[in-house]
Amino acid sequence: MLAKNNRLAERNRGWFAGRDILALNVMSAPGAGKTTLLERTIRDMGEELAISVVEGDQATVNDAERIRATGCQVVQINTGTGCHLDAVMLAKGLQELNPPASSVVVIENVGNLVCPALFDLGEGARIVIASVTEGDDKPIKYPHMFRRAELMILNKIDLLPYIPFSIERCVAYAREVNPGIRVIKLSALSGAGLEEWYDWIRQRACAVVGHDDGRELR
Amino acid sequence: MLAKNNRLAERNRGWFAGRDILALNVMSAPGAGKTTLLERTIRDMGEELAISVVEGDQATVNDAERIRATGCQVVQINTGTGCHLDAVMLAKGLQELNPPASSVVVIENVGNLVCPALFDLGEGARIVIASVTEGDDKPIKYPHMFRRAELMILNKIDLLPYIPFSIERCVAYAREVNPGIRVIKLSALSGAGLEEWYDWIRQRACAVVGHDDGRELR
Repeated sequence: MLAKNNRLAERNRGWFAGRDILALNVMSAPGAGKTTLLERTIRDMGEELAISVVEGDQATVNDAERIRATGCQVVQINTGTGCHLDAVMLAKGLQELNPPASSVVVIENVGNLVCPALFDLGEGARIVIASVTEGDDKPIKYPHMFRRAELMILNKIDLLPYIPFSIERCVAYAREVNPGIRVIKLSALSGAGLEEWYDWIRQRACAVVGHDDGRELR
Repeated sequence: MLAKNNRLAERNRGWFAGRDILALNVMSAPGAGKTTLLERTIRDMGEELAISVVEGDQATVNDAERIRATGCQVVQINTGTGCHLDAVMLAKGLQELNPPASSVVVIENVGNLVCPALFDLGEGARIVIASVTEGDDKPIKYPHMFRRAELMILNKIDLLPYIPFSIERCVAYAREVNPGIRVIKLSALSGAGLEEWYDWIRQRACAVVGHDDGRELR
C-alpha cells in the first residue's frame, strides 16, 4: 500500500513541477492552529502570491469554508474514518482545484501527528506545526513526523506566560530526531513571528515558481 | 483485522471482569494532558483506589517514568510507526502489569483523535480528553472518537481567559454526535474541577469492584 502511494506521490510531484507549483504539506495534532495560520497567511500574502488550499478532515467542510472566506480557492477532502491524506486523494483534489501555474498549493492534512507522516503526497516541503500548549516533548514522542519535516512551526507563543513549556527543550528534542530542522516561533492569533514565516514561504516559492528572476528550480 | 481485534477485545473484557477490574481507555490529541491528569489523579486517589497504568506511545518511556514516579505500577507499550493500541498489545501489557483484583487499570492510548477510536480494547469505559486550546470544533471534526466515548473531559480550563473558545458550542457539538456524552470541565494543572472527575471514577469503580457494599456488577 505504501509502495503504491509512493509511486502516485511521485506523479503528483511531477505534476507540481510541470506547473511550477510549490506544494506544502502542513501537518499537526488536532487544534494546533493549521487553519488559523492559513487564514492569516492568505489574507496577508494573497496579493503577493497565488495560494490555493486542499483541506483534509475526517468530517465537516468547516475548514474549507473558513479558507474560502479569505477569497482563496479551496477543495475539501473528507476522509471518513481515514486518518491521513494519501497521494490518490490529493491527485483527485488537485483535478478539482486546478491551481494556476506558478502558484502555491497548501495541503492541510488531517490533524494527526502519527499517520500522515508515513504518506508522501508529492509535496515540495513538509511542515509540522506544534503548539506550545501541547508540551515540549512532542518531537521525541512522535519522531516520525518531526524527522521528515523540513520546518517546525511553534505556534501559540502568546500563551507561553501561562503554561509550563521550554522552547529550548522542545527545539533540542526536535534536533535530536532531525538535526537540520528549521524552527519558526509564532502566534497566528497575535501575529508575533509571522514575518519570518512569510519570508520562508517567499524564499521557497521563489525557488520553485520564480523563473523570471533567473533563479534555478530546486 | 478489526474483526480479529474485536474478538480479542472481548477476551480482554472477560479478563477484566474475571478480576473485577475497571478498565478506562483514555484517548486524546497529542498534548491534551492525559499524563498530567493521570499523575494528579494517582497522587490524589492512590490511597483510596489501587490504580495501575498501561502507557501507549509511538516512542520513549517518558510517560511511564512520570507515572512510575507517582508510586504506581505501569507498563509502557511503544507502537513504533503504529498509531493506536490494539487488543493484542493490551493483552500482552496486562500480562506484564498483572494488576491486582478489584482495582482500576487506566490505559493511556497513543495521542491521536482518529485511529484509536476504531479499536475496541475491551475497556469498561472510553474517555476522551479535549483541551480547550484545541478549539471548540473538535467533536464534529473527529466524530468517531466522540461518538463512542462515555465521558468528555474538557481540560486546561485555566487557559480560557486567554483563548477564543466557547464551552457551550463545544458541548453542543459533542452532543450532536453523541447525545448521551457526559462532560466534566477541569484543569489538571490548577486543580479546578478535579473533584467531579474523582467522583466519576469512584462511582464507576464502585459498580465494578465494590462487591462488599452489596452493589451489582454492571
